[in-house]
Amino acid sequence: MTRKIRMGMVGGGEGAFIGAVHRMAANLDGQIELVCGAFSSNAERSIASGKSLFLDPSRCYASYQEMFEQEAKLPPQQRMDFVAIVTPNHLHFPVAKMAMEYGFHVMSDKPATLNLDEAKHLNAIINETGRLYGLTHTYNGYPLVKEAKQLIADGKLGKVTKVVVEYSQGWLASADDEGSKQASWRLDEKQAGISCCMGDIGVHAANLAEYVSGLTISELCADLTSVVAGRTLDDDGTVILRFNNGVKGLLFSSQISVGEENNLRLRIYGEKGAIDWSQQEPNTLWLRSNNNPTQMIRTGVGQMSDAALNAIRTPAGHPEGYIEAFANLYLNFAKQIQAHNAGNPATNSQFDVPGINEALRGMAFIENAVAASNADTKWHKFTV
Amino acid sequence: MTRKIRMGMVGGGEGAFIGAVHRMAANLDGQIELVCGAFSSNAERSIASGKSLFLDPSRCYASYQEMFEQEAKLPPQQRMDFVAIVTPNHLHFPVAKMAMEYGFHVMSDKPATLNLDEAKHLNAIINETGRLYGLTHTYNGYPLVKEAKQLIADGKLGKVTKVVVEYSQGWLASADDEGSKQASWRLDEKQAGISCCMGDIGVHAANLAEYVSGLTISELCADLTSVVAGRTLDDDGTVILRFNNGVKGLLFSSQISVGEENNLRLRIYGEKGAIDWSQQEPNTLWLRSNNNPTQMIRTGVGQMSDAALNAIRTPAGHPEGYIEAFANLYLNFAKQIQAHNAGNPATNSQFDVPGINEALRGMAFIENAVAASNADTKWHKFTV
Amino acid sequence: MTRKIRMGMVGGGEGAFIGAVHRMAANLDGQIELVCGAFSSNAERSIASGKSLFLDPSRCYASYQEMFEQEAKLPPQQRMDFVAIVTPNHLHFPVAKMAMEYGFHVMSDKPATLNLDEAKHLNAIINETGRLYGLTHTYNGYPLVKEAKQLIADGKLGKVTKVVVEYSQGWLASADDEGSKQASWRLDEKQAGISCCMGDIGVHAANLAEYVSGLTISELCADLTSVVAGRTLDDDGTVILRFNNGVKGLLFSSQISVGEENNLRLRIYGEKGAIDWSQQEPNTLWLRSNNNPTQMIRTGVGQMSDAALNAIRTPAGHPEGYIEAFANLYLNFAKQIQAHNAGNPATNSQFDVPGINEALRGMAFIENAVAASNADTKWHKFTV
Amino acid sequence: MTRKIRMGMVGGGEGAFIGAVHRMAANLDGQIELVCGAFSSNAERSIASGKSLFLDPSRCYASYQEMFEQEAKLPPQQRMDFVAIVTPNHLHFPVAKMAMEYGFHVMSDKPATLNLDEAKHLNAIINETGRLYGLTHTYNGYPLVKEAKQLIADGKLGKVTKVVVEYSQGWLASADDEGSKQASWRLDEKQAGISCCMGDIGVHAANLAEYVSGLTISELCADLTSVVAGRTLDDDGTVILRFNNGVKGLLFSSQISVGEENNLRLRIYGEKGAIDWSQQEPNTLWLRSNNNPTQMIRTGVGQMSDAALNAIRTPAGHPEGYIEAFANLYLNFAKQIQAHNAGNPATNSQFDVPGINEALRGMAFIENAVAASNADTKWHKFTV
Repeated sequence: MTRKIRMGMVGGGEGAFIGAVHRMAANLDGQIELVCGAFSSNAERSIASGKSLFLDPSRCYASYQEMFEQEAKLPPQQRMDFVAIVTPNHLHFPVAKMAMEYGFHVMSDKPATLNLDEAKHLNAIINETGRLYGLTHTYNGYPLVKEAKQLIADGKLGKVTKVVVEYSQGWLASADDEGSKQASWRLDEKQAGISCCMGDIGVHAANLAEYVSGLTISELCADLTSVVAGRTLDDDGTVILRFNNGVKGLLFSSQISVGEENNLRLRIYGEKGAIDWSQQEPNTLWLRSNNNPTQMIRTGVGQMSDAALNAIRTPAGHPEGYIEAFANLYLNFAKQIQAHNAGNPATNSQFDVPGINEALRGMAFIENAVAASNADTKWHKFTV
Repeated sequence: MTRKIRMGMVGGGEGAFIGAVHRMAANLDGQIELVCGAFSSNAERSIASGKSLFLDPSRCYASYQEMFEQEAKLPPQQRMDFVAIVTPNHLHFPVAKMAMEYGFHVMSDKPATLNLDEAKHLNAIINETGRLYGLTHTYNGYPLVKEAKQLIADGKLGKVTKVVVEYSQGWLASADDEGSKQASWRLDEKQAGISCCMGDIGVHAANLAEYVSGLTISELCADLTSVVAGRTLDDDGTVILRFNNGVKGLLFSSQISVGEENNLRLRIYGEKGAIDWSQQEPNTLWLRSNNNPTQMIRTGVGQMSDAALNAIRTPAGHPEGYIEAFANLYLNFAKQIQAHNAGNPATNSQFDVPGINEALRGMAFIENAVAASNADTKWHKFTV
Repeated sequence: MTRKIRMGMVGGGEGAFIGAVHRMAANLDGQIELVCGAFSSNAERSIASGKSLFLDPSRCYASYQEMFEQEAKLPPQQRMDFVAIVTPNHLHFPVAKMAMEYGFHVMSDKPATLNLDEAKHLNAIINETGRLYGLTHTYNGYPLVKEAKQLIADGKLGKVTKVVVEYSQGWLASADDEGSKQASWRLDEKQAGISCCMGDIGVHAANLAEYVSGLTISELCADLTSVVAGRTLDDDGTVILRFNNGVKGLLFSSQISVGEENNLRLRIYGEKGAIDWSQQEPNTLWLRSNNNPTQMIRTGVGQMSDAALNAIRTPAGHPEGYIEAFANLYLNFAKQIQAHNAGNPATNSQFDVPGINEALRGMAFIENAVAASNADTKWHKFTV
Repeated sequence: MTRKIRMGMVGGGEGAFIGAVHRMAANLDGQIELVCGAFSSNAERSIASGKSLFLDPSRCYASYQEMFEQEAKLPPQQRMDFVAIVTPNHLHFPVAKMAMEYGFHVMSDKPATLNLDEAKHLNAIINETGRLYGLTHTYNGYPLVKEAKQLIADGKLGKVTKVVVEYSQGWLASADDEGSKQASWRLDEKQAGISCCMGDIGVHAANLAEYVSGLTISELCADLTSVVAGRTLDDDGTVILRFNNGVKGLLFSSQISVGEENNLRLRIYGEKGAIDWSQQEPNTLWLRSNNNPTQMIRTGVGQMSDAALNAIRTPAGHPEGYIEAFANLYLNFAKQIQAHNAGNPATNSQFDVPGINEALRGMAFIENAVAASNADTKWHKFTV
């Protein structure tokens, strides 16, 4: 690249967690610079946030609408290239829509939109505007997740027979935990959509299962629950899965599993082998088979797929974490933008970033899981 | 005790795995002596097996019928006290029935019988004969399983909110694996009953969940599968659970999860804390909560419940394993027999051994799981 | 075998830990029966202990001298075959000596004797009497220790370059811990010998390092310490090692490392690979190399050496522990006795039991470590 | 801060590992911008490296001398604030010296200098110039290292009794590994100094032990070795330690321990408790005691010291790694510079960065370890 890619941000003012993570991820590799933001709907707070980020106050906006309008008027060599959307869920779609209509690429936090209809609408806008769209299914960014995906694609497990994915957290285990900013909007249907647990984390699990296995969910049987009294949205759920080729699966997810931190774990069993990966120890991938020692694959040790190698920054034994995985999405998105700018658009297999397809399937997963849970019949066909 | 308790055995001839395990478990504490056996339906092979166990050939029988008849004729100071049944499933009931009718106590391998009807019949016989009945749900015998049960009974987790139990194995992952003696009868409905995976190991998982949580399953939604082509019985399954007080749960079990050895893991979440125990590392019990360090409870370290202490043989850091857990059942059963002989029958809370109640619930679990899996409606009421 | 091997015991009365462990180890496989004992120097207490073990009071003796005299007079078909010595250290030698002089084989707890001179004397007696001698370096009995030894013997690691062995405990971390029966004699030079930490556990670590590596210690640099004030014997120590072929090594051992249970860990590095085994998780052996995934070798999974297979009792995933390892020594010792009785003495490679060679090297290790620690020069030649 | 802190870099051109790590660490928090560099002694390559980092070619220099001269002439609002030194060891001192003489602060890779004399000289220069000096003992930057330090300072372990620190790697296990750029200079005394293993990684271990324990090494007994034939510098070593208050310790370090990645582990035992931390799983800190469950302290879970909290970027369960630890040093160094610029110098306890004291002790450790290893007497007094 001959210059850094310029990023604007909507949301992520002081006190917000995920905005700061997006910024660190964008900073890490020195390929992206933050140039503007609508960090808050309060102009003063937006400017204060921007100032702490060393931004010019003239580029700290009180609304995303204002940001897109003003940035579009700037000369190309100053104007932001893309916007990072880190608001509560209900704003993801309108911000992304307007950004693209003003010519900006979009990197959005997940879930992509408030519902499936919006995601379909977003898809149409992407097709119309030709803008690039990235969705931060962060966990795809880990080197050993990419290695696992490659092992399966290469047939190292044989035919896949079973998928078990779990995403357990405990932070919403009691009503007392609802007071925080993080909790309150996630439990409010207007801001979060029709699901809390499946919308916030179950969708990550479903995405990871499909991403690594290369399969797509075709049917499901679901039991979502509001364990903590008084909640209208689910805070826990189990979903039995069937994938496109008849493979069975299981997804369970919870925000009330006391003592669990951020326990996302994926196991995929095949006729010859199995992989097992846990997000909390992301630099270890277990490769099992029936009559051999289990292999402990470690980030950066020995031969690895190009996909994994491209996602590694440090030598073996120097642990890489969540921010590095996140940064892999940003780095690839920056490379996509540069290729786009150079008139030579990249394929996703070159610079892998979850995008609109994952957005559509993610929103469909949430809606299908809720519908399946509400049904009396056991099986519910997965439709997009 | 003033003498060792005398044991006979049905099944468990040379080459059988579980018979040898029962004998080691019975041997370990020096409270039980093997005095006779019907190790094989072939008289010569039964005698050969007995000889290798240093038994008098006159007490190596060609059938269990002969054994009970002949042993009953022996003077009381020679006659066996109880029989250990280690045959394939379909013989558990007829052997137990006849043993009790001849006045012998019974320690049976699980599942208790071929079906629920037999278990009910067995219950009636127990009530009629007053004989003692033990069922080797081995995993209940681990010290830290007992500690977990006690922690929950003492309210250390608060109200239980969720139960997740898994039992994964890989040894039946391909049709090639069916040739072994261990595999062939388990996949044959006539010898194994209506389920392979749920009957062989799922029932252990259900038992463990109920034993530790103190709850009982009241409803279930099941998806059992024969993953390997050509099988008539299930080799994998997922069961969503509801317990008596509305608590949600999940049980999944598999014999086709390649690379899994004997992965039985139980997690129980409560409002204040959670426990996590895995059979393959049985001397560690994790106690989690939301805002404190996770506690790594280790066999023999620090204060423990009496239930756990009574199940421990070695100091901390000297690992106890599967045979020791198994031996805890035998040791308690021997103590029950001695108390019985002394005219002062013990309660199960004194000398804890799974018995006819676990037999009934176990057989009901298998039948309800199969019925639920065959149903189109999502939820199936658990009946005994 | 056509009969069980008959065992007597010296020491191990009620309240003693290690005597009970020896009995369980002897019981496990049903090849050995306890027939007599001198459990206490108090006749009544010896009889009480024997009674709780279902022994005939006539064979519960008030002294080992009496036991050997009386047992020697019994007809061969009743008389004990061997004695298990489970007393404090200072009695190991006189009991073993007298036992052999009366024609009995000996299985002794470690360390073999009070000092090296006694061990040499013992060696002479063994040579004179032709009796069998076993020493319970228990940790050699674990299946994966045998597998590790075989891997190295087969050259799987290439030339060995470094040995690191650690044995850390915390139970003697404060003077308050000295009150127990277990602690008091270990800290008394008259009963324990010239070292506490090295004599009690360091010697296990040295034995394990030599056993698995196939190397012998030739030089050492030691720093032993009495960390807790007022002790005359060491409770902690570090020993830098040189082995016979120039290989470097490190042994560190402690009884004051608070929070450590029984943490014996052995790592052996070679030019091509390395093994790593920890006694507290004995069913896992790590096999590492520089450019491949680490292999997690598990008891009973896949191909194993005969040495390991012969030491395994349960299928993969059914954990075997300390008592099973201990029982492997007893089982092999019973087989040695039977072969001896059959006039066809077994080699140690058939039925592997630590013996007089390990006794000599163990006592030499203790004495050399203490001497090296007392020296001002860095290196001390290891002499036997 | 009202502006980003401006960084120059010496070394770290294309293909270098540690330079890229320094840049990512500096980038992460958005508080520092790279403005210039002397990435290579070849002008073209320096410019090429700078271009790939989006630097103005006019600020890509062919030598550090040129860089300092030219940067010093720039107006204050453009001129770099500090230089990051990421060259082989022999250049650390001359670059740092010249930088300070030109008025720039210095962040240096470790070891600080080629030998202790240079470190003392550097100390004098720091005192003369009043410049800030940071040394990247990266491992101090991990949140749970800071938590461990605080636990000990707060007396949670009681009086410290023993320190065990290990740093094992395997990447230099064979002569074949010497070809790489990383390996070749480390094995060359002219570039690396008098030690390879102790100078490259042993010094990290010594630093970590002193940092966390709050103790200082006062005596040592060392055995350094060149395991691979033909090497003049050590590639492995064991050092027995005595700390200032009589506490015993052990440090062992290796670059030939096949299969080890970057295994830095610290255990500190006290009279009441013990900590155990491993760099490869840096988000877990074990807190042990003798009669309680071990506590598994996890980054971001529950109450933590301010020192740890200030070093955490993501919520519990979102693993932080090596780059984040490194970035904590850079972030604090940036804050120190800002405070310095504001005329209100910070104390190291506010913004913790290893500095000249760690430089002096580190160089002294290397020299004392080599001298102790060369001595025939056991103990060597640690002098600075």
